[in-house]
Amino acid sequence: MDASEVEALDIVSVGELVVDFISVEQIDTLGNAKTFRRHLGGSPANIAVYVSKLGGAAAVVSKTGIGAFGKFLKSQLARHGVITEYLVMDHRTNTTIVFVSSTSGTPDFKEFRSGDYLLSPGEVSEEAIDSARVVHSSAFALSREPCRSAVYEAFRLAREGGKVVSFDPNYSRRVWPDHKEARRVLPEVYKYVDITKPSLDDAGRIFGREYEPEEYLRMFHEMGPITVILTMGKDGTLVSENGRISGHVPARPVEVHDATGAGDAFWAGFLTAMLDGERPMRCALFAREVAEMKLEQVGPLPNDIDRGPIYARLEEIAEKGTSPASDGAR
Amino acid sequence: MDASEVEALDIVSVGELVVDFISVEQIDTLGNAKTFRRHLGGSPANIAVYVSKLGGAAAVVSKTGIGAFGKFLKSQLARHGVITEYLVMDHRTNTTIVFVSSTSGTPDFKEFRSGDYLLSPGEVSEEAIDSARVVHSSAFALSREPCRSAVYEAFRLAREGGKVVSFDPNYSRRVWPDHKEARRVLPEVYKYVDITKPSLDDAGRIFGREYEPEEYLRMFHEMGPITVILTMGKDGTLVSENGRISGHVPARPVEVHDATGAGDAFWAGFLTAMLDGERPMRCALFAREVAEMKLEQVGPLPNDIDRGPIYARLEEIAEKGTSPASDGAR
Repeated sequence: MDASEVEALDIVSVGELVVDFISVEQIDTLGNAKTFRRHLGGSPANIAVYVSKLGGAAAVVSKTGIGAFGKFLKSQLARHGVITEYLVMDHRTNTTIVFVSSTSGTPDFKEFRSGDYLLSPGEVSEEAIDSARVVHSSAFALSREPCRSAVYEAFRLAREGGKVVSFDPNYSRRVWPDHKEARRVLPEVYKYVDITKPSLDDAGRIFGREYEPEEYLRMFHEMGPITVILTMGKDGTLVSENGRISGHVPARPVEVHDATGAGDAFWAGFLTAMLDGERPMRCALFAREVAEMKLEQVGPLPNDIDRGPIYARLEEIAEKGTSPASDGAR
Repeated sequence: MDASEVEALDIVSVGELVVDFISVEQIDTLGNAKTFRRHLGGSPANIAVYVSKLGGAAAVVSKTGIGAFGKFLKSQLARHGVITEYLVMDHRTNTTIVFVSSTSGTPDFKEFRSGDYLLSPGEVSEEAIDSARVVHSSAFALSREPCRSAVYEAFRLAREGGKVVSFDPNYSRRVWPDHKEARRVLPEVYKYVDITKPSLDDAGRIFGREYEPEEYLRMFHEMGPITVILTMGKDGTLVSENGRISGHVPARPVEVHDATGAGDAFWAGFLTAMLDGERPMRCALFAREVAEMKLEQVGPLPNDIDRGPIYARLEEIAEKGTSPASDGAR
């Protein structure tokens, strides 16, 4: 194929594309949930969807089965404008499914993994990586072979090609029970990573819960990434570059209708602003706007989100000269 | 344990105990179903539940995970009076789940197998088999090792102990793609089987669709069972003993509200009447009554079904002297 025929991509997400079965009942534990509704799921896939909604060109590299659930995911991605040609749909496997309790707290979940972790290095399209500006993946995708090697391969190709490598350390001991292995594998992967978004929970699950945010930032920087964005829930977000905190974005009070996917919306917002050439602190402010839209929305975000009004709101904050930090957080 | 402490069992079902996620929408294909509700599922488990509802003592031997879904199944069995002490709940595996489209036709389904097929021969309780009068299993359970060997072991112990061995050849190429293997394994298992209930669809899937009902009956008898009950949907049921058709039970017109589980209700009815000492033709008439109750019912059958009124209805039919065959079927 002539290079000019390949569509330029803003982001290629490598990793879990799954069917989330989210309980219809608002309930803390799966044991009490009776009815479930299907949704496109998987953090890297969600990020691709949100980047696409924000006007970016996004693709997902992941493996699914070829049955009703695989077809559903492909059609959902296409509906949101995400490029599906680099999906690997394999008749020898099932589509990974995840049951999730719908709750305003931390969701209970149970994964039935099949296709997602069977993505092999040879199935990562070089063309997709070549045509991307950002290549993104997650700890979930790293938790099992051969997908772990596929992520390595994608990141290696991305680094060679001078792409921005983004990583979400969404570590869960349930998904990746061998914590020692995770502590060994993560630094190997982080050698390729330019930018990463741990939550305080992620950091605690990886390094232990006894550290201060500044120490977590240092530990992530030591593994390689130049930019570390630490999200801390109600305590806002710390932006750290080259080992130094360059800013704090406080959380603002919002009426939370649905917390599912807010972290992915945040990161999609961050990457979108970064692709627009913004500095990390502005990216984090932009990300907060997108995350708040998701938190306040009942159901999915609209399909075409205009970035203009979001940037306009950032200008308002800057012109007022009132630091958003005036709400007293940190 | 002192033998006297062990509860006598009418039936021990060995094989699939699963969570059925049945679509809330009435829909032919899973691809179009959006919402799913959890139910206890698996043909042998359903048969144990129906035998229990009909007043029998039933147990299930199967493997599940220990999470929310395994706990749900155990509590559902217990709620219906089924003995759960021979379940194997294993933290190393998941509970098998099956998505099913809710339709008046043939349901579309997609299975995610984990625990059910991992039941090993050593996990089949000898005590359970010893205390049972009937030991039942299915082709689904045979489709994979080590569960296949576990069914062999259960049937071998049952035969040694002089139990009635019952088998449902619910063969599906989707579940058991190696048809040649199935054709080789089924005769090995049928050596132990006394009584079996193929549907015309099962028979066609196993032997090919080109035969007449009488030929299917002969082919099943040749594998070993003395009694073969061939269910033929609207064409009713053929009862065959020792290689000869001893009767035909026509289907009666019923208002079908829910076809799910009607075949299992039929077989639970048949086995219940057999345990009451009835001859096969009477068992089939009793089975039809139970299947019709299920077909006409919206939702599950009541928990305590009195067998008295059902037998009374059979007497009415006998006294009228009008063959139910007068509806013209066959």
